[in-house]
Amino acid sequence: MQVALVGVSGYSGMVLYRLLKQHPAVDQVNLYGHQGGQLAALKTVVPAFQKETVNVRPFDAATVMTENAVLFCATSAGVTKTLVLPLIAADFPVIDLSGDFRLPAATYTKWYHQAAAPVQALAKASYGLAEFNHRLTHYVANPGCYATATLLGLAPLVQQHLLDPTSIVVDAKSGLSGAGKKLTATSQFTMVNDNLQLYKVNQHQHIPEIVQQLKQWWSAVPAIEFTTTLIPVTRGIMSTIYAKAATPTTTAALLQAFQQVYADQPFVQVLPAGEMPTLKQVIGSNDCVLGVNYNPVTKTILVVSVIDNLMKGAAGQAIQNFNQLFQLPATAGLPSLPVFP
Amino acid sequence: MQVALVGVSGYSGMVLYRLLKQHPAVDQVNLYGHQGGQLAALKTVVPAFQKETVNVRPFDAATVMTENAVLFCATSAGVTKTLVLPLIAADFPVIDLSGDFRLPAATYTKWYHQAAAPVQALAKASYGLAEFNHRLTHYVANPGCYATATLLGLAPLVQQHLLDPTSIVVDAKSGLSGAGKKLTATSQFTMVNDNLQLYKVNQHQHIPEIVQQLKQWWSAVPAIEFTTTLIPVTRGIMSTIYAKAATPTTTAALLQAFQQVYADQPFVQVLPAGEMPTLKQVIGSNDCVLGVNYNPVTKTILVVSVIDNLMKGAAGQAIQNFNQLFQLPATAGLPSLPVFP
Amino acid sequence: MQVALVGVSGYSGMVLYRLLKQHPAVDQVNLYGHQGGQLAALKTVVPAFQKETVNVRPFDAATVMTENAVLFCATSAGVTKTLVLPLIAADFPVIDLSGDFRLPAATYTKWYHQAAAPVQALAKASYGLAEFNHRLTHYVANPGCYATATLLGLAPLVQQHLLDPTSIVVDAKSGLSGAGKKLTATSQFTMVNDNLQLYKVNQHQHIPEIVQQLKQWWSAVPAIEFTTTLIPVTRGIMSTIYAKAATPTTTAALLQAFQQVYADQPFVQVLPAGEMPTLKQVIGSNDCVLGVNYNPVTKTILVVSVIDNLMKGAAGQAIQNFNQLFQLPATAGLPSLPVFP
Amino acid sequence: MQVALVGVSGYSGMVLYRLLKQHPAVDQVNLYGHQGGQLAALKTVVPAFQKETVNVRPFDAATVMTENAVLFCATSAGVTKTLVLPLIAADFPVIDLSGDFRLPAATYTKWYHQAAAPVQALAKASYGLAEFNHRLTHYVANPGCYATATLLGLAPLVQQHLLDPTSIVVDAKSGLSGAGKKLTATSQFTMVNDNLQLYKVNQHQHIPEIVQQLKQWWSAVPAIEFTTTLIPVTRGIMSTIYAKAATPTTTAALLQAFQQVYADQPFVQVLPAGEMPTLKQVIGSNDCVLGVNYNPVTKTILVVSVIDNLMKGAAGQAIQNFNQLFQLPATAGLPSLPVFP
Repeated sequence: MQVALVGVSGYSGMVLYRLLKQHPAVDQVNLYGHQGGQLAALKTVVPAFQKETVNVRPFDAATVMTENAVLFCATSAGVTKTLVLPLIAADFPVIDLSGDFRLPAATYTKWYHQAAAPVQALAKASYGLAEFNHRLTHYVANPGCYATATLLGLAPLVQQHLLDPTSIVVDAKSGLSGAGKKLTATSQFTMVNDNLQLYKVNQHQHIPEIVQQLKQWWSAVPAIEFTTTLIPVTRGIMSTIYAKAATPTTTAALLQAFQQVYADQPFVQVLPAGEMPTLKQVIGSNDCVLGVNYNPVTKTILVVSVIDNLMKGAAGQAIQNFNQLFQLPATAGLPSLPVFP
Repeated sequence: MQVALVGVSGYSGMVLYRLLKQHPAVDQVNLYGHQGGQLAALKTVVPAFQKETVNVRPFDAATVMTENAVLFCATSAGVTKTLVLPLIAADFPVIDLSGDFRLPAATYTKWYHQAAAPVQALAKASYGLAEFNHRLTHYVANPGCYATATLLGLAPLVQQHLLDPTSIVVDAKSGLSGAGKKLTATSQFTMVNDNLQLYKVNQHQHIPEIVQQLKQWWSAVPAIEFTTTLIPVTRGIMSTIYAKAATPTTTAALLQAFQQVYADQPFVQVLPAGEMPTLKQVIGSNDCVLGVNYNPVTKTILVVSVIDNLMKGAAGQAIQNFNQLFQLPATAGLPSLPVFP
Repeated sequence: MQVALVGVSGYSGMVLYRLLKQHPAVDQVNLYGHQGGQLAALKTVVPAFQKETVNVRPFDAATVMTENAVLFCATSAGVTKTLVLPLIAADFPVIDLSGDFRLPAATYTKWYHQAAAPVQALAKASYGLAEFNHRLTHYVANPGCYATATLLGLAPLVQQHLLDPTSIVVDAKSGLSGAGKKLTATSQFTMVNDNLQLYKVNQHQHIPEIVQQLKQWWSAVPAIEFTTTLIPVTRGIMSTIYAKAATPTTTAALLQAFQQVYADQPFVQVLPAGEMPTLKQVIGSNDCVLGVNYNPVTKTILVVSVIDNLMKGAAGQAIQNFNQLFQLPATAGLPSLPVFP
Repeated sequence: MQVALVGVSGYSGMVLYRLLKQHPAVDQVNLYGHQGGQLAALKTVVPAFQKETVNVRPFDAATVMTENAVLFCATSAGVTKTLVLPLIAADFPVIDLSGDFRLPAATYTKWYHQAAAPVQALAKASYGLAEFNHRLTHYVANPGCYATATLLGLAPLVQQHLLDPTSIVVDAKSGLSGAGKKLTATSQFTMVNDNLQLYKVNQHQHIPEIVQQLKQWWSAVPAIEFTTTLIPVTRGIMSTIYAKAATPTTTAALLQAFQQVYADQPFVQVLPAGEMPTLKQVIGSNDCVLGVNYNPVTKTILVVSVIDNLMKGAAGQAIQNFNQLFQLPATAGLPSLPVFP
C-alpha cells in the first residue's frame, strides 16, 4: 500500500513519517507540501532525517488520490478545511490530525477564531477517539492531544455516572512539542527550562472537543474547568483530573470500572491501587496509562492520565485509526514499549 | 549580632547561610552540627562553598546560647523536637525550619509517623506565616514550602468566605530540592529529567498544616484535596488552586480582595487580570506572586501561587521572621529581585 | 529463534529487550537474572514495562544453552568473567555488552581495578566494533559507548595516517544513562540539572580499549588525551576530537577519506562540509553521525562524533553483531530514524 | 552616586540592574533605551521585574552625563560604536559590555562583519580583564564571556611559558543565555533540551579577543583552536583547555603557578589536585573556579575554567571594573557565594 502524508515538517508529521516507514502494511510513504512551491528534499525540511532521500512534492489532489490509498494530514489548524475538499467529495480516505473537522462550524469559529470548513464536508467526518469509535467514516478527525488524555481518564466515570458532572477540574501539563515549532518568546529554552508557564486559561481549543464528547456519553456534563501548564519537557502530557464522587465510593470500586472499560484495549493500562503513572513510562509508545485514587475525606476522585502527545496524542492514534479503517491488526506498526530511560 | 545555624549541609541550610552572610544586622554566622562528632570544614560539607573558611562545630546548647542571639534550625523532621528543648526552657529565640513544632502532638504523630515534641514545648511555639502572624513567640515554627504557597493563595478567599469551603482542590508542583538531598531511585537525574512523578497523594505532611491554618481563618473549611507532582526543575513551587465560588463573582472582584489583603506586603505581588505567574519570576527572590481568574461557566475560582521553595518557602521566610522577632526592617537582608534568567 | 538476555534491569538491558522484542528473527526473549534468587516479574524489575507479563528466571548455564540460540549479557563489569565460562567452553554464541572481554588480562586489571577473566577465555573473544570487524568469533565483546563514538570518528584519520599520532585530544560528553543506575550524590537531579561535571579525568576504562584499537590500525599512536564530561541529558554521547594534521590538508580532502571508509555503512553518516552533528539527530536510532572540519590556521583537524550511548553505544551495536553472527541483514531489527523531536 | 544603564532588556542588562540595585555605592539606577521612542515601564520590558516602578527613558547623551557618574552599556554588538561617541569625547566614564571596543578596527570588521568604531575612539578604550588590567582608562571594554573564562585559565601557563604555544585547544561549552534573547530555530526549547549543538566553529568573535590578549602576554602564541558547544543549561560557561607542556612537569608544579598568580584575587579560586570544577559552584556568583591536571603519558596540560557567563562573564566583571574605576573595595556589591543548589 502507498500512503500520502502532508505536513512532515511539523513534529506530529515527523513522528508519523517514522511510524509509517516501519508499518508492515505500508510499502511507500509519499510526501506532499501544502504550501505549493518547489520540490524539496526531506532532509532539508527535517535535518534530523539526514539519511532519507525522498522529496516533498507540491500537493495535488488528483495525484494524491491516484498514487495512494489514504492521506494523512499533519497540518496546523486552518489548512485541511480547504485543502482536502476534493478528497471528501470523492470519499477518499483521509486521517486528519488537525482540529479542522472535530467541531461543529459555530463552535470551531468561536474557539479557533477563524472560519470553519463547509457544513456538508464537516458532516462526513467522524471523531476518531480510537478506543471508543469503532464506526469510522472515510474522513477521520483524529483527536487532540489534551482531549485524548483527558477523555480516556474521564470515560468510565462519565459513562457510568460515577462523578458529580458539575465538579470536573482538569489540571493538564504538557511538554513544548505540543505547541508546535512556532518561535515565540515563551518557547525559547531560557523561558521554558527551569520554569512552569500557564497558557490559554479556560480558552484552550481542546475544551469544546472534550466537552462535546463528554456530553455524548452523559448529557448532564455542563462544562469543565481546564488549565494547561507548559512544563520543561519536550514530549508528554499529564492530565490530572479531579471530580467529586456521585456517591461515596472506594478506589477499588473505581478501579474495577476502569479495568472493565479498558480490558481489551492494547494501548490503555490501568495501574493497581496505590500507583500513579509517570510521563516517562509512555514516551515513545502509543500507551495511555491511568492511575486512580479516591479520597474519602474530600469525597474526591483523582485520575491521572499520561500519554506521549506526539504518539497516542497524534501520530500513534492516527495509526490506530488507519489500522481500523483498513481492517489491519489493532497493534500493527505501533511500538509496544516506551523508549526508556 | 552573632547568629547560630544548625543544618547547613541541607539545601535550606545552604541558602540560609548565604542570606545570613549578607544580612546587614548579622556580624557572624556560627555553624553547629547536630550529629555530634568532629569539627568539620564547611567547604567539605558544602563543596559549592569552596571559598569559606569557617568550621562546623558540634552542637552544644549552652555554647549556642552564650555565643549567639538566635538559633536557626534547618534540620530534617525529628531533630529539633529533642535538640532544642534546653533553649525552649530558657526562652532563647529559635527559628525552626523543620515541621517539628507546627502541629499538635497527635496530628504530628499521625502525619510524620513518629513521636512528637513534648506538649509543653509545643505550647511555646508560634506558627510563623510571615504575612499573617505578627505576634511571634520566641520559638518560631517556620511554615512548610507547600503550606506557604498554598496559604498565601487561599488566604483572601477563605478569610472573606469567597469560596465554597468543601470544594478546595490544590494541584501543587515542586522542584526536587523540596525533597532534600536524600538519594532515592526517584531522585536520580534519569528519572526526574523529562518526567513528572506524583508522590504522597493525599498523604503529604503539609496537608494538616494547611488545613489547621485555614480552619483558624474560617472554621467551615473541612479538608482539602491536595496532590504533589515532582517536576524537572531544581527550585520552585507552583500551587494551582481551584474552588467553587461561594456566590457568582468576577475576576475583578476577586483581585480587589487580594490586592487589599496584600497591599502593604513587600513580598507578595498580585498580578493584573489576564496574567499568570511563572516559576522563574520568583527563583532567587523571597517573593510570592499570585494570579487570579474566575470562570463564570464553571463558577470556579483559579489561583496560581508561585514561590522559590528554598527562599519564601524556607530560608527567606525565616529571615522575615528573624527581622520581625528582632524588630528589624521587614526587607532587611532579602533580595528584592529574582535571579533571572 | 529464541534468545537469552541477562541484565534486563540495567539501562542497556532495557533497550536491548525492546529491540529484541521487535526483531524479525527473534520469536521469544528469555530473561535470566545473574544474582540467583527468586523468579521475578519483569514489570517489577522495570516499572516502565508495565505491560509485559514475562518473568526473569535465575541464570543457569545449561538451561540457557538448551533454550536459546544466543546469550546477550548486559551486565556490569565483573559479572561475565565468571558467569559465562561454561558457555565459552561450549563455544555457545555470546554477545557481551560489558567490558570483561575487551582487554588483555593485565590491562583489564589495571583499569578496572579487579581480577580479569581467565586468559584462555579471553583468547576466544573478538572485539565487535561492527563497522570494522567482520570476522567475529562466538564470543563477541561489544565495544564501550565512548570507544564506539571515538573510534568511528578517528578510524579514517588513523588508518590513513592523516594526523599526528601524538596529538590526539578527545573531549567526550555523555548523558547520565552512560553511568548506569547506581545512586550517587553526583547522579541526583539537583547535581546534574543545569550543571557540567568532569569525572575520571584520564582514568576512564574506555581509554585502553580505544588505544588498543588505534594501535591495531596504526602502531604509531602512543596514547590519547581523553576527558569525560557529564552533561544534563539522559541519553547521548558526543566525542569532540582534535588532532594536528600530518600534513596541511583541507576539509574537502578529509571528508573524502571519511566518505570512502563509510560509503557502504548503513549506520554511519558523514555530514557535508560546514555542518556539525547534534545529539538529538541520533537519539533512539543506531546511527553515528560525523562532522569534520580542518582549521588551516592551527593545522588542526576537528571531528565531532555523536551516538545514542544505549543504542549504537550498547544495545544497537549488539544487534548489529547479532545480525552479523547469524548472517541476517545488517539492518534487521534496527530503527532507521531517530526518535525526534 | 547615580549610575546609567542602557540595555536593561537583555540578559546581561537584567543581571547588571539587579547588581547595581544592591550595590552599596549606588543610590539610583537610571535606565535609558538606545532605540529612542517612548518612555516604557521597566516591568513591561522585563516581566520578571514586576515589582519595579522605574521607567526606561530614551537615551540622550547630555542628560546621561548630567544625571550620572558613569554609564553601563549592556547592548548588542554594533550599538555603542556610535551611541557613546559624545561621552568618549567628553572623557565621561563608560563600562561597555559589548564587543565594540575590544578589538582594532580591522579585526573587528573581519570577525563582527560590520564597520568598526572610529579609530580615535577605539584608542581611548582599555580592555577590562579585571584580574590583570589595573590601569583602566575612562572607557572600559568589558571582556566577552568566553574570553574571560579562557584567559583566566590560560594566563599562568602563557605568562610563564609553561605550554607549547602552538598546541592550545579550547573546547568551550555555554548555556543559552550567552546567545542573548534572539529567537532562532536552534534556541527553541525542543532543540536545546536533551541536545548539544556546536556553532561558529573556529569563527566565534571571541577568538581574536583571546588571541590578542595571549599575544600581549607571550608573543609566541600564534592562534588557538576554539570550539563552542551549546549545552542545555540557561547560565554557565566551561572552558576545557588542552595544551602540550613546554617541558615535562607535574600537576603540583602547575598548581603552584596558578596559586601564585591568583593568590590575592577574591574572585578566582584554584582547586586542589584531583578536583575539577562544576558549573553549579559558580552560578549566581562572580567567581571563576579553575581545575588543573597534568597527564604525563600524553604530556598534556588540562585546565578547566568555569564562570557564570552573565556574572563574571558580563555584569559581575563590569561591577569589578566599576569598583576599580571609582576606587571602591574590590568586592563591593558582588555576592561571595553561588546560588546553590
